[in-house]
Amino acid sequence: MIIDNDTQRDVMRVAHLMADAARPLILRYFRNPEIQTMNKPGHASGFDPVTEADRGAETVMRAILATERPDDGIIGEEHGNQSGSTGITWVLDPIDGTRGFISGTPTWGVLIAASTVEGPQFGIIDQPYIGERFVGGFDAAALDGPHGTLPFVTRQTTDLSQAIVMSTFPEVGTPQERAAFHAVADQAKLTRYGTDCYAYGLLALGQIDLVIEAGLQAYDIHAPIAVVQASGGVVTDWSGGPAHTSSRIIAASNPEIHAAALAVLQANCDD
Amino acid sequence: MIIDNDTQRDVMRVAHLMADAARPLILRYFRNPEIQTMNKPGHASGFDPVTEADRGAETVMRAILATERPDDGIIGEEHGNQSGSTGITWVLDPIDGTRGFISGTPTWGVLIAASTVEGPQFGIIDQPYIGERFVGGFDAAALDGPHGTLPFVTRQTTDLSQAIVMSTFPEVGTPQERAAFHAVADQAKLTRYGTDCYAYGLLALGQIDLVIEAGLQAYDIHAPIAVVQASGGVVTDWSGGPAHTSSRIIAASNPEIHAAALAVLQANCDD
Repeated sequence: MIIDNDTQRDVMRVAHLMADAARPLILRYFRNPEIQTMNKPGHASGFDPVTEADRGAETVMRAILATERPDDGIIGEEHGNQSGSTGITWVLDPIDGTRGFISGTPTWGVLIAASTVEGPQFGIIDQPYIGERFVGGFDAAALDGPHGTLPFVTRQTTDLSQAIVMSTFPEVGTPQERAAFHAVADQAKLTRYGTDCYAYGLLALGQIDLVIEAGLQAYDIHAPIAVVQASGGVVTDWSGGPAHTSSRIIAASNPEIHAAALAVLQANCDD
Repeated sequence: MIIDNDTQRDVMRVAHLMADAARPLILRYFRNPEIQTMNKPGHASGFDPVTEADRGAETVMRAILATERPDDGIIGEEHGNQSGSTGITWVLDPIDGTRGFISGTPTWGVLIAASTVEGPQFGIIDQPYIGERFVGGFDAAALDGPHGTLPFVTRQTTDLSQAIVMSTFPEVGTPQERAAFHAVADQAKLTRYGTDCYAYGLLALGQIDLVIEAGLQAYDIHAPIAVVQASGGVVTDWSGGPAHTSSRIIAASNPEIHAAALAVLQANCDD
């Protein structure tokens, strides 16, 4: 499906509207000591700040879509799926990286993607606390942040022994998937954990070479795919096929390092 | 040793001067694509951006001390030790968390401590990219950041099963130290890796409960000790003794969770 230029501009406009609206809603709950008090042992409410922030932000993003692009489809983590008639589906995850969120680490993100049946076409990874927005697709390919705009440019590492790898393992995946991941990580120069969606932004910025994950949902991965593809990177599943319909992802800064890591994954994961 | 109020104010002034000066010097090297190009395979220089940033920032911090407080001692990661006559020693690490720095993750920090023979009295953990400064000691106990000032207040978790733990393991420590750390982590609610000095700031802010590390140097730990102690947290070595002269650290949000985690460490590390 071809998306004409006017529609591309409108999709980008609405994506930024949603990201702008989500920021203050979610920041109300991030590192908020009053909310932590509400959540103390002995407090009866069972109040979960990350769930409140997640739901509230998705509700507002869906309200924006209902007004601005009512005929598009929606896949959202919190409020389910809604079919559309335009061929464009929004894939939303208000807080990707809830473990980071609840421990105060500023590497969680708001994920917003506009996808067609062929896959993600445009995506935003927004980090509200730092004020960073990774934007990829429809000719956009840059980070807007507190120190200005930095265009995406991926690393040209071709040798696994020189690669920097990021992953959500060991917190996700089956034992076999973990073993395959470690077969790659053991050959790499450096492996870092727990950065969630932020890792894909760092790959697009040329800071790291590989992101390898398993156990993912569509809402975890559509926006990161758009960001990485816009940077010149390669994203597939662990068989080398389309990533946006898979739970196992390998994102790489260039085709050579993608092929090298994929070969190791495949040699160590036979299902 | 008692530090009088005028000296305390002067020490704080000079610490902030150094942190302010280090920020732009180090940010020149963080995520800089031109520097990455200089460091490509095949480029003969062996240029290491993190070493350049580290050395440059420490040189400038020492120049500030030479002008503003020439009679204090200095312990620095890059340029060695210098004795003083005032009883105050500055403990400096321009970039703590070099693995995070080289992979673009904004959780490294500039560490500045003013210590006496009794231990750290005042400390700063500064994150230049986000623009965050954790400040503890001499009655200071707060984070200054992009969303204003947040006073330190630690969590009151007393049960390990409810604790959030951060660590630089598995990247540091001996196998026995790692086993002792995992004996604690396996009982915790959540364990996160790779945040370096930033973890101590999150503990002081009431975001997490425990930081457990080994293989540390004085310059890694003096500023974090001051920050955590100012927040009401407890920092010791793994035998419950002073932390600032040890390579093994346990920082805790309150005395109860400190005692619970320390007992598990001691039961699993007998040297």
